Amino acid sequence: MTRTRTPVPQARGPSDHEVRNQIVEAATEYFGHYGYEKTTVSDLAKAIGFSKAYIYKFFDSKQAIGEVICSNRLSMIRSAIDEAVAGAPSASEQLRRLFKTLVESGSELFFDDRKLYDIATTSASEAWPSARDYEGHVKGLIERIVRDGREAGEFERKTPLDEAADAIYLVMRPYLNPLLLQYNLDQADEATARLSSLILRSLTP
Amino acid sequence: MTRTRTPVPQARGPSDHEVRNQIVEAATEYFGHYGYEKTTVSDLAKAIGFSKAYIYKFFDSKQAIGEVICSNRLSMIRSAIDEAVAGAPSASEQLRRLFKTLVESGSELFFDDRKLYDIATTSASEAWPSARDYEGHVKGLIERIVRDGREAGEFERKTPLDEAADAIYLVMRPYLNPLLLQYNLDQADEATARLSSLILRSLTP
Repeated sequence: MTRTRTPVPQARGPSDHEVRNQIVEAATEYFGHYGYEKTTVSDLAKAIGFSKAYIYKFFDSKQAIGEVICSNRLSMIRSAIDEAVAGAPSASEQLRRLFKTLVESGSELFFDDRKLYDIATTSASEAWPSARDYEGHVKGLIERIVRDGREAGEFERKTPLDEAADAIYLVMRPYLNPLLLQYNLDQADEATARLSSLILRSLTP
Repeated sequence: MTRTRTPVPQARGPSDHEVRNQIVEAATEYFGHYGYEKTTVSDLAKAIGFSKAYIYKFFDSKQAIGEVICSNRLSMIRSAIDEAVAGAPSASEQLRRLFKTLVESGSELFFDDRKLYDIATTSASEAWPSARDYEGHVKGLIERIVRDGREAGEFERKTPLDEAADAIYLVMRPYLNPLLLQYNLDQADEATARLSSLILRSLTP
């Protein structure tokens, strides 16, 4: 029995992947201008010039689009944090830079893209996967830095590692979670520098 | 020249002080039921059975009434904190009890008087005098406890006192400020216990 060979698909216009990107890009701009909470997929469709049905072929809901926007932004913040931490000469300095960078990135989003910040607060209050992943990433990073600092003799070792790391995360949380950060922006640089020093004093061997 | 003696005023109904108290009591109940933000002095007047003009004889504005309600509640919280701290055997224990009591009092207000909590968030976001006084009281208490702990040899003395006290206040702030506390109620007991331990590690001589 001979099989007919499946023909190699011809490029017939943009791929699904490209269309998804196009929608996300347009939505980022649209939500950035008109806000996320108060706009609908219909508004968005009209603005992009797509039908609502066509957008729903690619995304199940407005949240699904918001989730990609959020996730894109958070991966930029994660990269900024990872980069800042990677260049630090000691575990202490890594913790300082981690804290400083996450506050700077969050404040930047708040001040430069106030409307997109809405998506961030929604994602935090509804615990979207992107928000939970980001929190998990920061928690993991703190634990890794504390472990490294202990191994290098830089930090105390009496407190259980998870307890020490968790407490540090709790100190940083009001500056990391966008729901809380919006009330903490006043003198956030000075506050986080002070809190970093307190954290480091708590880690003294 | 002989002066006519001013006659001793006769009690002619309730004193101003009593009327003020009566309005505040009724307003506490009213706002506790219908919320603060969405009600007006007219609504309140109607509910109490006073004229709006009569209420305005005693209070300049709705905020002036809210301010007294807030101030009453905060002085209850202050007493609870002061009492908890006074009974503690050491500066470390004083800090723990301070943190624990302020979280418990705030959570209680949130869960038992959800509508009155609205006034608390308004007072915090608009920095009413009662809210600022309360913050000042807690800051002063922290500084006093840290100073006592240093004098008793319980805490380290290298860090400038105001810096150490300020950083501790910053750790507690998300659980003390009602705007922030509402997002921190989840496992607040455990979180504040962990944070107290971190604070105390930071104070180790």
